[in-house]
Amino acid sequence: MTRSRLYLFDTTLRDGAQTTGVDFSLPDKRAIAHLLDDLGIDYIEGGYPGANPLDTEFFSADNGLRARFTAFGMTKRAGRSAANDPGVAGLLDARADAVCFVAKSWDHQVRLALGIGLDDNLESIRDSVAAAAARGREVLLDCEHFFDGYKANPAYALACARAAFEAGARWVVLCDTNGGTLPHEVERIVGEVAQAIPGDNLGIHAHNDTEQAVANSLAALRAGVRQIQGTLNGLGERCGNANLTSLIPTLLLKPAYADRFEIGVTTEKLQTLTRVSRQLDELLNRTPDHHAPYVGSSAFATKAGIHASAVVKDPATYEHVPPESVGNRRKLLVSDQAGRSNILAELERLGVGVDRDDPRLGRLLGALKDKEAQGYAYEGADASFFLLAKRILGTVPEFFFVERFSVNVERRWNARGELASYSEAIVKVKVGEEDLISAAEGNGPVNALDTALRKDLGKYQSYIEDLKLVDYKVRIFQGGTDAVTRVLIEFQDAAGERWTTVGVSANIIDASFQALTDSITYKLLKAGADSMSVLPGPTARSARL
Amino acid sequence: MTRSRLYLFDTTLRDGAQTTGVDFSLPDKRAIAHLLDDLGIDYIEGGYPGANPLDTEFFSADNGLRARFTAFGMTKRAGRSAANDPGVAGLLDARADAVCFVAKSWDHQVRLALGIGLDDNLESIRDSVAAAAARGREVLLDCEHFFDGYKANPAYALACARAAFEAGARWVVLCDTNGGTLPHEVERIVGEVAQAIPGDNLGIHAHNDTEQAVANSLAALRAGVRQIQGTLNGLGERCGNANLTSLIPTLLLKPAYADRFEIGVTTEKLQTLTRVSRQLDELLNRTPDHHAPYVGSSAFATKAGIHASAVVKDPATYEHVPPESVGNRRKLLVSDQAGRSNILAELERLGVGVDRDDPRLGRLLGALKDKEAQGYAYEGADASFFLLAKRILGTVPEFFFVERFSVNVERRWNARGELASYSEAIVKVKVGEEDLISAAEGNGPVNALDTALRKDLGKYQSYIEDLKLVDYKVRIFQGGTDAVTRVLIEFQDAAGERWTTVGVSANIIDASFQALTDSITYKLLKAGADSMSVLPGPTARSARL
Repeated sequence: MTRSRLYLFDTTLRDGAQTTGVDFSLPDKRAIAHLLDDLGIDYIEGGYPGANPLDTEFFSADNGLRARFTAFGMTKRAGRSAANDPGVAGLLDARADAVCFVAKSWDHQVRLALGIGLDDNLESIRDSVAAAAARGREVLLDCEHFFDGYKANPAYALACARAAFEAGARWVVLCDTNGGTLPHEVERIVGEVAQAIPGDNLGIHAHNDTEQAVANSLAALRAGVRQIQGTLNGLGERCGNANLTSLIPTLLLKPAYADRFEIGVTTEKLQTLTRVSRQLDELLNRTPDHHAPYVGSSAFATKAGIHASAVVKDPATYEHVPPESVGNRRKLLVSDQAGRSNILAELERLGVGVDRDDPRLGRLLGALKDKEAQGYAYEGADASFFLLAKRILGTVPEFFFVERFSVNVERRWNARGELASYSEAIVKVKVGEEDLISAAEGNGPVNALDTALRKDLGKYQSYIEDLKLVDYKVRIFQGGTDAVTRVLIEFQDAAGERWTTVGVSANIIDASFQALTDSITYKLLKAGADSMSVLPGPTARSARL
Repeated sequence: MTRSRLYLFDTTLRDGAQTTGVDFSLPDKRAIAHLLDDLGIDYIEGGYPGANPLDTEFFSADNGLRARFTAFGMTKRAGRSAANDPGVAGLLDARADAVCFVAKSWDHQVRLALGIGLDDNLESIRDSVAAAAARGREVLLDCEHFFDGYKANPAYALACARAAFEAGARWVVLCDTNGGTLPHEVERIVGEVAQAIPGDNLGIHAHNDTEQAVANSLAALRAGVRQIQGTLNGLGERCGNANLTSLIPTLLLKPAYADRFEIGVTTEKLQTLTRVSRQLDELLNRTPDHHAPYVGSSAFATKAGIHASAVVKDPATYEHVPPESVGNRRKLLVSDQAGRSNILAELERLGVGVDRDDPRLGRLLGALKDKEAQGYAYEGADASFFLLAKRILGTVPEFFFVERFSVNVERRWNARGELASYSEAIVKVKVGEEDLISAAEGNGPVNALDTALRKDLGKYQSYIEDLKLVDYKVRIFQGGTDAVTRVLIEFQDAAGERWTTVGVSANIIDASFQALTDSITYKLLKAGADSMSVLPGPTARSARL
């Protein structure tokens, strides 16, 4: 069966730039364009050259992309020709393979927001599209507010779409600008439009305001469009655009689509999707959405013990697609709901070999339950779980030993008559036979303690020089300042490896200290640092640290 | 036109408990049940009595809910009768209005995971449903893996559904357990099932693994079901369950649904939805999703200048529904006008009288912007907002003045050879002409500081004797131990009044201190304590505290 070609158009760099809290630098834009290009996206919309210096610069050089690099901008103003419109000129001078014009297609909007006649708007569309086509560009027209416009005045909305198509636009893109259109409405309206303009020339641009941007895009596809616009991780104004990170796997892995459509992303490239999604978050310094479909760290996580044992028997039981197909992985949560199967699978994943019948497994399970009852949670703290398991298996060396620490925070008037806070920490550590004492200041008590602790670890110092504390989370249980505090700390090393550790105590400083020392121990263990002694088991360890 | 009744079934407390990182305490469960009840949800699934002590206790008392309180659990095991199955007995002994059994409806699963015959499974369904109905419970059956099962063996999946219906189940719920079913498949399959079982007795339970749980729920509704299951904020295993927080506004505000269906949530209660969504996040100490449809802080945010001016001309231009309808608000590039109305409304709610044209209102707006830029958030901290406003209006007395404080945490070996932590604080306060210095120990640094601060406030001591710190929350921004820390502290007095204050600093102790002093000042102000002086305005205050 011949499959139709479906084109993916990414607007992360244009509509995604409207996301609250997102500001792209030029290096960001270049890096993201290459991520998209490598993934196999057909069109990459880079921005609005002429509207701001950054976008103008981005479009001034050849970016070396395989994808069609697309410039976005408005159609010409009424009352002048496209040739005499500086905005259009800026677009046509940009180094782009394609130009995507935006034009209103809702009569009410044309009158209200533009304040021009309905025919003037049609004329602007025709003239702008023709001018760009004459310059050899592939032309797209985004019909803004298409669905709301079609509901209000179908003839006029259709006239806008037809004007673009007849003037030579390769694509007429139907935009649900306000994001309020429902899938069954999209399906009906696209079906009607496809009677006038071939589906091969139609695109969909959906927003997520009713949490249905993905469903709207697929509804439009079923009704005939052959281009889908969206963004990585669903970035975009308000609630975001259609999420390509969810759409791509569905298009490739679900037979209902994979059997009918061919896209530029291969199943091999699909295996990089999770990494691409995380890299984007990394670039933008956003916390990844753990629950994101396909690529979230919890997308293939199983917490309930009964489910976990079934997943081990047959993954298809609770997985709609194999996690590896999108470069993600299965995660059986080690929680108090979990059983032996979860733990064995988790140990295997972490490379800790242990036999199903090993009596130490029962001890580990018991220790885990005790810890979780105290407030520890290992589902987000792989490195601490790894250490706990290794300690019970008796294979964690004691690299260093903290004799004592002291942290002080003082708030008082300084010499300039200002009220100021001072945080300082002193840590005394034994490394082998060597006693080391370090002091440090910090912005707060945990920062001071962390700095002092990592200031001098003697012969191990070289292993921890490249560590960077990248995340610090606190959760309080049972209310009140005397409640139990759980701290999660994430470190990263120069190689880019990240790991998370957990500490629990009524005292936030103690909890932080536990997570900090676990993190350093984990790094030393992974780096194969030479140790002074191997502790026999968990008892000795917990009595001392 | 007569509208059909559509029932909403919430499983936040059951399936939502499978969310990675979510652990409900009993008070959490009670609080959430009341949030849901007040909103107008028809069924509240509370958990699995008998499976763990917390759920058993939750179901041991009358929770005073209007909604049908529902116990979840498995059908009886094969080889024994429902009457002799301890699991079923636990369910039937629970104080619940309804019982929701779960049973597999995919032949492959019955054989693989349960290891029993297909007929045994049908018998378990029949017997369990009948036993619960005989005990006067309203009965629901969750058909696990229904859609995957139906694709593999439609006759068997349907036989499971029919067995439950014929044995007296009020509802047969079709579950897309793995979340991989697509909307057009849901619509077709539900349509076929509705030929065998009336839609009035069918429910849908969707998961978000392709980002289409909301669309799947609506597709099922269109195909005939009259019950939708979901969770607040889309909590749930892996990628979550169908998000009721998105579904409810769509059902009430979109004519395609509002004209056809009636639900238990009124348009008045809909205006509390944003607050309910935030309260849940607050309870679970989760960062709200700013981009959540309808209720996210950015759901009605407009970043682009051109859009913003159009929104001012006519909000419908870029808003698919009015933000007020869901208790949310428009967010422009904080135009003075929009901000002023918001703040006036908020002040009125707190009983702070101020004229619309009062120049101090502009100062308050400015102060608020500064504070929010620093990381303060007043949505969850009414008492701090109240104080900020009163300070700018010049009506907050300075009851006490903290000269300095010092907090120390030390971890060292004690006389018994155990490693122990010691936290102590010293606070020096001026009350009138009196200098007071207090020291205290605590479980941790904040507890020590709180205890020392409230140990002796001289003539005000009687006002604060009854205070109890009931909640303490910490949120860290921008990653790392040197990041900005926001602390929220909730106090309660003997009369049961509760109030929350906020503090922000790079230093967690400082942030806590701000929130603690705000809280005491709030109490003294509300109690009408006699003060020594009234500060003129915010400048003097902020220079000292």
